[in-house]
Amino acid sequence: MSRKVIVIGGVAGGASTAARVRRLDEFAEIKMFEMGPYVSFSNCCIPFHISGTVEKADNLILMSPEQFKAQYNINAFVNHEVISINREEKYVEVKNLVTDEVFKETYDTLVLSPGAKALRPKSIEGVDSDHVFVMKTVPDLKKFMQYAETHEIKDVAVIGGGFIGIEVAENAKKAGYNVSIIEAQDQILAPLDYDMVQIVNRHLYNKGVHLHLSDGVKAIEADKVVLQSGKTVPAQAVVLAIGVAPNTQLAKESGIELNDRGYIKVNHHYQTNDPDIYAVGDAIEVKDFFTGEATKLTLAGPAQRQARAAADSMYGRTYVNTGVIGSSSVKVFDMNVASTGLNEKRCKEEGINYGFSYIIPKDGVGLMPGSNNMFFKLLYAYPSGQVIGAQAVGLGNVTKRVDVIATTIMLHGNLEDLKELELEYSPHYGTAKDVVNHAALVALNILNGEFKKVPVSQVRELVENNAFIIDAREEDEYAQGHVINALNIPLSQFRDRLDEIPKDRPVYIYCRSSQRSYNMVRALGQRGYENVYNMDGSFLGISEHEYFNDQITGRKPIVTEYNFI
Amino acid sequence: MSRKVIVIGGVAGGASTAARVRRLDEFAEIKMFEMGPYVSFSNCCIPFHISGTVEKADNLILMSPEQFKAQYNINAFVNHEVISINREEKYVEVKNLVTDEVFKETYDTLVLSPGAKALRPKSIEGVDSDHVFVMKTVPDLKKFMQYAETHEIKDVAVIGGGFIGIEVAENAKKAGYNVSIIEAQDQILAPLDYDMVQIVNRHLYNKGVHLHLSDGVKAIEADKVVLQSGKTVPAQAVVLAIGVAPNTQLAKESGIELNDRGYIKVNHHYQTNDPDIYAVGDAIEVKDFFTGEATKLTLAGPAQRQARAAADSMYGRTYVNTGVIGSSSVKVFDMNVASTGLNEKRCKEEGINYGFSYIIPKDGVGLMPGSNNMFFKLLYAYPSGQVIGAQAVGLGNVTKRVDVIATTIMLHGNLEDLKELELEYSPHYGTAKDVVNHAALVALNILNGEFKKVPVSQVRELVENNAFIIDAREEDEYAQGHVINALNIPLSQFRDRLDEIPKDRPVYIYCRSSQRSYNMVRALGQRGYENVYNMDGSFLGISEHEYFNDQITGRKPIVTEYNFI
Repeated sequence: MSRKVIVIGGVAGGASTAARVRRLDEFAEIKMFEMGPYVSFSNCCIPFHISGTVEKADNLILMSPEQFKAQYNINAFVNHEVISINREEKYVEVKNLVTDEVFKETYDTLVLSPGAKALRPKSIEGVDSDHVFVMKTVPDLKKFMQYAETHEIKDVAVIGGGFIGIEVAENAKKAGYNVSIIEAQDQILAPLDYDMVQIVNRHLYNKGVHLHLSDGVKAIEADKVVLQSGKTVPAQAVVLAIGVAPNTQLAKESGIELNDRGYIKVNHHYQTNDPDIYAVGDAIEVKDFFTGEATKLTLAGPAQRQARAAADSMYGRTYVNTGVIGSSSVKVFDMNVASTGLNEKRCKEEGINYGFSYIIPKDGVGLMPGSNNMFFKLLYAYPSGQVIGAQAVGLGNVTKRVDVIATTIMLHGNLEDLKELELEYSPHYGTAKDVVNHAALVALNILNGEFKKVPVSQVRELVENNAFIIDAREEDEYAQGHVINALNIPLSQFRDRLDEIPKDRPVYIYCRSSQRSYNMVRALGQRGYENVYNMDGSFLGISEHEYFNDQITGRKPIVTEYNFI
Repeated sequence: MSRKVIVIGGVAGGASTAARVRRLDEFAEIKMFEMGPYVSFSNCCIPFHISGTVEKADNLILMSPEQFKAQYNINAFVNHEVISINREEKYVEVKNLVTDEVFKETYDTLVLSPGAKALRPKSIEGVDSDHVFVMKTVPDLKKFMQYAETHEIKDVAVIGGGFIGIEVAENAKKAGYNVSIIEAQDQILAPLDYDMVQIVNRHLYNKGVHLHLSDGVKAIEADKVVLQSGKTVPAQAVVLAIGVAPNTQLAKESGIELNDRGYIKVNHHYQTNDPDIYAVGDAIEVKDFFTGEATKLTLAGPAQRQARAAADSMYGRTYVNTGVIGSSSVKVFDMNVASTGLNEKRCKEEGINYGFSYIIPKDGVGLMPGSNNMFFKLLYAYPSGQVIGAQAVGLGNVTKRVDVIATTIMLHGNLEDLKELELEYSPHYGTAKDVVNHAALVALNILNGEFKKVPVSQVRELVENNAFIIDAREEDEYAQGHVINALNIPLSQFRDRLDEIPKDRPVYIYCRSSQRSYNMVRALGQRGYENVYNMDGSFLGISEHEYFNDQITGRKPIVTEYNFI
C-alpha cells in the first residue's frame, strides 16, 4: 500500500519535502496544506518588488497548486489551515479558510513546515495602526504596495536593521521615499562585527539612508516614529523588520516537544519526538556546527537541506547532519556584504579563544579598471589556527571569498590550508595571492608571533592618549589626509631616520592598507625595537571605521579632512 | 655576518622571493639581476593594453629598481644578464647589457627565477617576419603597439587558443581589428573539456572572432597566414601565443638538474640539486596534487607561493608542499570561464576512474534581473566520490563556484561534503541550493545509481540513430525549438500518456535544463521502465553544444531552428 504523507505549510521547506518525497516514491499519496493564499513563493525576493526590481508581485509566486498536481502529482491546498493533529489515530483536522468547512485527513507520515511570523511587539504604542507593515509574505507586500498607492507617503521608517530591514530600506529608497532605519542595538547586520559594519554604515549614509542606532521605538504615530531617546523620525509608513517567531502553536497543542525558545525540537534526521512527524524550516531548532548546541537559523539554504534529509529519512536513507555554520550575504546598494561562521561577538559569548586578521586588499589587479578595495576579516581558533569565520565587505566579489572560507570551515581546514589554497586567478577576478590567501598569511604571522598589531577599534584611544604613531606612506599621500598626530616617516626613508623612532615606548605604524607598515614593523623588530605594532586596516580601515561614527556622534575626528579614495 | 642572496630574474617569482627574504632578514644583502629592461611588471595584464583597457603600457610596471632600493633595501639591476654560475666558488658572472661590462658577484644563496620565453617555432615559414609578434613582456607589447601605429593593419591573426591567445584576440577585437584565432588542436582553452568549450566558441563567434580549429600553421605571409589545410587567414599582423619554453640554458650549463622537458628539478622546498641554489617560477617543475608526478604550471599564484616557500626554507622554516591542482580562469568578452583540478581528458590520460555531473542552473534567483545560466561540470573519482575537478562557464559569478571546488579538492572533500556545504546566499548572488550543492546532488544520484544519463556529446549519435527521445517541456517551449525527432510529452502530462512511452527500448529524456526530465526519469524508473536516461544539459546544453560545430563544419543540425534564450 502506498504511503500517505501530509505536509503542513507549502512554502520553502514544505514544498521541497513534498517534491523530494515524490522523487523517492512515485506512488506515495502526498497532500500539502498551506494557510496562506500561495504555495512556493520566493520569500527572499519580496523586498525587491518595492523598487520595481522585481516587476510584479505575482512574479514572486513560483508554483501554483495546479502545477504541483500536474508536475509532481501532489495535491496542494491554499487557504487551508490544519487546526489539530490527532497523533494516536494519525489524522489532522483541516479547515478551509474560504468556506470554513472542516475535514479530517489521515496520514502515515506528517511533515510540519509552519514557518515563522514577523514580530509585532505590543510594547510599541501604535504598532497595530494601518500604516504599520511587516514584510514576510506576498500578502504583506501587497498590503504595503496598495497603501503606498492610495496614501501620500514621503517618509518610510524601517524598524530593525537585519537583512530584511536593510533590503526594504534600500528598495524603498530606490522607490523614491525618504528612508530611515531604526535599530535598538548599536549596529545593524548582526552577523558582522562592529568594526566591519561601519563600512556598511558609511555606504548607507552616502546613499542618503538615515540610520538611528542604539535607540528603541517607543511609539508609532500617524506621521512619525518616537524613539526611546525622545528623538522623532518622520514616517507616513512604517515597516517592522525586527525578527520572527516560530509558528509552533499547533505543534505545541499536539504534544510535539518545543525548546525553551519555542522552536520545534528535532533529532538529526528532523524527526520530532513523534517518529511519524517530521519538522523542517524556520520553526525548528538546528544544531550549531561549532558547539553542537541548539540554535535557530531562519535561512533558505539550510531549509532546503532539511527538507531533503527529512524525506530521505522517511525512506530509510541515512544522513550526516553537519549542523549549521551560519553563512549569509546581502547586497546593500552597490556594496556586497557576506559572512560565515563565528564572529568576534559570538566567540566572546561562547568563550572561544580566537584571533583574527583584518586586511583591505584589492579584489582584482590594481591596474585593471573595476578593481576595488575589499574589507576582509578572518577569524581563527587559538592556538590551533582552525579557520572559524570570515566577514567581507566591498564593491567587488566578496561572496566568493566568504564561500571559500565557509568551505574551509566545514572541511575543518586551518590557516596553513588556507594560505596554500590554489584558487583560479586572472586579473579581472582577483590577484595572484588571493584575498583569502593573504588573510591567512597575515593571521599565521600573528599566530606565530611574527608581529603584533592593534585592531582598528583601538586606534581612537591611541590617538587620544598621544601614542607614537608613524604614517609610513609617501609624503604626498600623508598630505592628502592622515591620522591626527601621526609622524610621517615613509617606508622609503625609515632606514635613514631611525633616530626619530623611540625604542623606549610603543610604536604604532600604519600606511594605506598595512602592506608598507607591515614591512616596516618587521624591519624594526629585527633592529631591536621590541614594542612595534602594525595598525589593522591602516588609513583605509581607520578612516572608514571612524567616519560614520563621527558623523552621528559629533565626536572630534581622529583623522584630518581627506577624500575617500 | 649577513647572508648574501643573489636573485636571477626580477619579475614575479624573483621579486617576490627577494621581498620575502628582506622581511625575514633585515640585514641580508640582496641583489637581483634582470635581463630585461623592467623588474616586477604585470605579465598577466599585458594583453589588456591592446584595447586600451590598461591605458598606458608603462602602467604595467609595478616597481622600479629605485623603489626596490628605497622600500626593501634590495639592489635591483635591469638589463643585466647573469652569464655563468660558478658553484664551487659560489659566484656568478654578470653582464651589463648596456655597457657590455662583465663583473663577478659572490653569493651565499642563489635564486633562479629565469621564467620562460614565448615559442617561435622555426617550422613555420615566415615566423621571423617583422609583422609576427609574441606577447610575453612589456617590450613585446610595445613592439606590437608601435608596429600597429605605423602600419596599415586591418586583420590580426592570433596563433594559439590558450589564455594569452584568447585575451590578445579579445583585446585586438575591441581595438577594432578583424581577428582570427588559429588553433592546431580541436579546441581552444585546454583546461576545459571539449563539451564545455563549445559554449565559449559560440560566444567568440557571436562577438565576431573567427575560429579556425584542428588546423596548424604552415606559413606566415605578408598579408595572410596559410594553414596546413591550405585555407588562408587574412592578417597584416600575427601574434604567436602557442606556449612557452623555460629559460634554463644557464641552469643547464651550470650543472643544475633539469627534467626531460627542460624544466629545473626542485625538491619540495624549491631547492635544486645544489642546496645553495633555489629555483622558482615558470622555469621549474612542480608536483601534481593528484599524482605527485612532476608537471609544469606557468601561473602567477603558484609562483608566489614558491617564492615564499623558497625564502622560508633558506631561513630554516618548514613548508608543506601540497602540489598543484591547476586552477585557472579567463574572461572572454562578457563570458567568465574557470576551471580547477582534473578534467575528463586528464582523467583518461592518467587512467583515473571518474564520473561527472553536468548542470545548467541559474546563477541567481531566476526572477531577479541579472540572473544567468551557468554551465557547470563537476568531476569526482569513482567509486570514492572524492571531488577532483570542475569547469564553469557563464555570464555570472563562475569563479566563486570554481574556487569552492578548488577548496574542496585541496581539503579532500567528497560529494557528500559538497552537497552539505552551507554557502552564503541572497537572491542577487545565488540560489538557496547553490550551483555546487546542486552539482553534488546530481553527481551523488549518478554515483548511487539512482538514475542514468547520457552526456551531451552523445546526443548527436542518438538523434542520428533515431533513438526514442522525449522532450518533457511544455508545448509552447517545444514549439520554439527542439531536438529533431523528439516526441513532446510534457512532465505535466506524462502520467496520462504512459502508453506512448515504450518499455522495450531505451528512452532518453530532456527538458530545458534537466530538472523536469530528471523528475520524469525518476518516476518512470519506479513505474517499471528500466532503460530511461536523462540527457545531460538538456535543451540548453544540447543546443549550445551543437550550434558552433554546425556553423563551422556545415553538419546537418540536430535541433530545429530556434532562438537562444
